[in-house]
Amino acid sequence: MSQRLYLENLHVGQRFVSNPRQVTAEEIKAFAAEFDPQPFHLDEDAAKRSLFKGLAASGWHTAAMSMRMLVDCVPLADGLVGAELQLAWPKPTRPGMTLQLSSEVLDIVHSRSKPNMAIVTVRNETRDQDGELVQVFTVKMPVFKRPGE
Amino acid sequence: MSQRLYLENLHVGQRFVSNPRQVTAEEIKAFAAEFDPQPFHLDEDAAKRSLFKGLAASGWHTAAMSMRMLVDCVPLADGLVGAELQLAWPKPTRPGMTLQLSSEVLDIVHSRSKPNMAIVTVRNETRDQDGELVQVFTVKMPVFKRPGE
Repeated sequence: MSQRLYLENLHVGQRFVSNPRQVTAEEIKAFAAEFDPQPFHLDEDAAKRSLFKGLAASGWHTAAMSMRMLVDCVPLADGLVGAELQLAWPKPTRPGMTLQLSSEVLDIVHSRSKPNMAIVTVRNETRDQDGELVQVFTVKMPVFKRPGE
Repeated sequence: MSQRLYLENLHVGQRFVSNPRQVTAEEIKAFAAEFDPQPFHLDEDAAKRSLFKGLAASGWHTAAMSMRMLVDCVPLADGLVGAELQLAWPKPTRPGMTLQLSSEVLDIVHSRSKPNMAIVTVRNETRDQDGELVQVFTVKMPVFKRPGE
């Protein structure tokens, strides 16, 4: 845990890049069966006849996989916690894709009432192996200074 | 599948309410272990010492459970598909809570280029057993007329 990050370790323009993550049809179907059981997330043949023209991951599955990549590459000491965000899925996640998340610190606003805290705005892009965007979300998170400093 | 909904079955102000869904600590930890492995989602003791002051579900888990309730109570014939949305978690989902989703059609904008389609804006609120809001998201979805009409 030597690389746990506190507020003093962050600056505007800072970037983080996750390890790549491959997506399988089995994962797509398992997530969908539990949380988004629609034909185009569950069955290749039904998916061909849908808007998606083939099996596609639930957007919430893309979001969940992206969160996992975020947790793994941005080790904030007090955790990654957001209360609201804007989210877009410009194209669907497909089986066989390799996803990778990159995050950029857009803004840091120090709290007036809590001197050990700032609200940090981070933009998180998830791209496929061709660099095409499958998801983007921007979130504001409370980030704290190292205790005792 | 007698209740599959097409565009002509929707109107502004229409509401849908899901069945209730209970949330267990086991589910919270299982989701977090896969997608959001942070201490306050995984372990009661660590959670007590965190911002959350006790075990809390990942926001993405709340979102995924809410999507499941949405799919179960709004049976759009061509599926529920959103490309972008705004999402907020006013308070955390806790073990033992009973969640329920209610959705309201806010707006229906008929496409000029595709006469069989409209963009329908839906606001989806997830509340706990005391009626307190744990999540809200507003999404725009393409919805189609019944084929042949």
